[in-house]
Amino acid sequence: MVSCEPPSTTKLVTMDVESVLHMKEGLGEASYAQNCSLQKKSMDAMKHIIVESAVDAYASEMPESFTFVDLGCSSGSNALPLIGDIIEAIHVMARRSAKTTPEFMVFLNDLPSNDFNSMFLSLPLFTKKLKEGIELHGGMAPSVYFAATPGSFYGRLFPRDSLSFIYSCYSLHWLSQVPPGLVDINGRPINKGKMYISNTSPPAVTLAYFEQFQKEFSLFLKSRSEELHLGGRMVVAMLGRTTDDHSDKSTRVLWEVLDQSFAIMLSQEMIDEEKVDTYNVPFYAPSAREIEDEVHREGSFMIDYIQTYELSTSTGDPLKDARITSMAIRAIQESMISHHFGEAIIDTLFHVYGGLLSQLMLKEEIKSSHLLIVLRKTH
Amino acid sequence: MVSCEPPSTTKLVTMDVESVLHMKEGLGEASYAQNCSLQKKSMDAMKHIIVESAVDAYASEMPESFTFVDLGCSSGSNALPLIGDIIEAIHVMARRSAKTTPEFMVFLNDLPSNDFNSMFLSLPLFTKKLKEGIELHGGMAPSVYFAATPGSFYGRLFPRDSLSFIYSCYSLHWLSQVPPGLVDINGRPINKGKMYISNTSPPAVTLAYFEQFQKEFSLFLKSRSEELHLGGRMVVAMLGRTTDDHSDKSTRVLWEVLDQSFAIMLSQEMIDEEKVDTYNVPFYAPSAREIEDEVHREGSFMIDYIQTYELSTSTGDPLKDARITSMAIRAIQESMISHHFGEAIIDTLFHVYGGLLSQLMLKEEIKSSHLLIVLRKTH
Repeated sequence: MVSCEPPSTTKLVTMDVESVLHMKEGLGEASYAQNCSLQKKSMDAMKHIIVESAVDAYASEMPESFTFVDLGCSSGSNALPLIGDIIEAIHVMARRSAKTTPEFMVFLNDLPSNDFNSMFLSLPLFTKKLKEGIELHGGMAPSVYFAATPGSFYGRLFPRDSLSFIYSCYSLHWLSQVPPGLVDINGRPINKGKMYISNTSPPAVTLAYFEQFQKEFSLFLKSRSEELHLGGRMVVAMLGRTTDDHSDKSTRVLWEVLDQSFAIMLSQEMIDEEKVDTYNVPFYAPSAREIEDEVHREGSFMIDYIQTYELSTSTGDPLKDARITSMAIRAIQESMISHHFGEAIIDTLFHVYGGLLSQLMLKEEIKSSHLLIVLRKTH
Repeated sequence: MVSCEPPSTTKLVTMDVESVLHMKEGLGEASYAQNCSLQKKSMDAMKHIIVESAVDAYASEMPESFTFVDLGCSSGSNALPLIGDIIEAIHVMARRSAKTTPEFMVFLNDLPSNDFNSMFLSLPLFTKKLKEGIELHGGMAPSVYFAATPGSFYGRLFPRDSLSFIYSCYSLHWLSQVPPGLVDINGRPINKGKMYISNTSPPAVTLAYFEQFQKEFSLFLKSRSEELHLGGRMVVAMLGRTTDDHSDKSTRVLWEVLDQSFAIMLSQEMIDEEKVDTYNVPFYAPSAREIEDEVHREGSFMIDYIQTYELSTSTGDPLKDARITSMAIRAIQESMISHHFGEAIIDTLFHVYGGLLSQLMLKEEIKSSHLLIVLRKTH
């Protein structure tokens, strides 16, 4: 849930950056230094698309106040640089159009348990530097106002017709809950030994996850549609699948290594089998087609742009990669695992996990699949 | 800075509750249980005026979204019940007018160092109970959205023309800083041994405080005027003076007991004289006339209602009163005193302070003076 940085060190391997930037009109032109790495380019391309979509949203109505939200902003300061880029780009656009730069109202959203206090403490300095940076290039910096909105984006967060632009980075692959259909009619777990869709999971597991995704993504779209102005834009970056295969390797491999870690601890009687069988993650990595289907069904949005691509976690040093990935997965999963199994197993679990991941990464490159979607509210 | 509860236990002594409620048309009718205490009545009267002003603001434009803010909400849960009362009253008014109840956007404001996290954690339960309470009386509860805005209200916090209603409870007697004029041309402190306007302070001290108040209250009015819709209302409850005398006893007595405590610690060489002489509080208790002058000078607001009144801190048990007041003053002053003198003196200081306060309260009743102001944006 780090704003527009995938959860671990990544490198673009199959995505054509130029096609990402130019496949669709209206997403603007990129001008990147020729010598930046492919990885940097990939991140920049995603950020560029978010910024250009915000500029498009502004251009479509030229409001006096431009209100936008980062959904799932997390507590880190990663959210702020992108917000600065959006404000600067709209400021430049307004000046070119000889318009007064709008005032900006920026909403930061995450669950109520997020640490908003630490983000608030970094806002005054961020705002000061942003203004100084803009004024360095001449003219008056625009007024920027911040507010935090605690709550789940699977439901309404803002009054009707109150936002010009919405984006969400690496948050929407989290469901609001584990699908209810992961038990049989007797209440026994059907996804035994697995925590996500695996290539050995029964079809009912895939169906349970898919239906939960459909229900939640549809609710997400409906909620945002009510909040967004007509002509407003919404950008979502998330983990996804490049294929229609639900047990696509890139979306399940890291979960399966965690399954294997639990199996080892189970064989050593360090955890209960029942606990392992009932542990499932509230996660779903959709394909572009599944997203498209939900967008068409909901009916308020037009897809301006949708792209899937694979990123490798390889830095060229497999042991370092395994360490970084293990730490990232621990950071993401620790609270959920502690809640289910108790805190005592965490250190051992991630020791085992790190070992298995190192072995795997020494053998093969691990890729993750990503989705980037730009929507425009048309109804 | 506790929302619409004065900083300590209070009892209405000079205020005629009925006249507060009925002095001015448009502020609605009260119906209080006959057997509630005078003190409860006073608090209820203030809350009632805030709620009725919010209803008036709603009635003047009947918007689809009603956006309001609690300025200086603090981190306690005291802010929430009043918010619930405002929403319920507008819901009832909308139903009576056969209008759809608006959606509510509620902003909670305080300085960035406020603990917003703890308030956020209490929001889901509060919202649930509020909705259940409203639905118990029939009909659908309105949608309520919360956001927090960190920042000083001495300056802009929201985009232009974005709010329908503003209120602030017991926050505006705090200045953004100690007045700069409390030193002579050689940089020597002129308010020696005192931390606020005292009846022995030189006139330049009064002037420095007064000018700081004028500057800051004017900036406050100008900022809020830009943010508020035409016809919108703003209510301010704060400590003030019932007379034009700047060294009005009720506004200085608790500061002077703190001055005496420092004097005792100084005589025992527990603190430095220079530290005492340079310690001043960023506080100002204005009179109704001073408020009126600033409102007229700024020019955007009409005064719908202004009232000063005295409340006694007496519960009938002077030693208990002294303990409560001492704890309240410690809670408010501890961070500032620690910052200036170091943490080490705090326990001793408030031990001395509590003792002096007990002696004083055994001899006489201590009163505090309050101001309640209802403004309407007319330009």
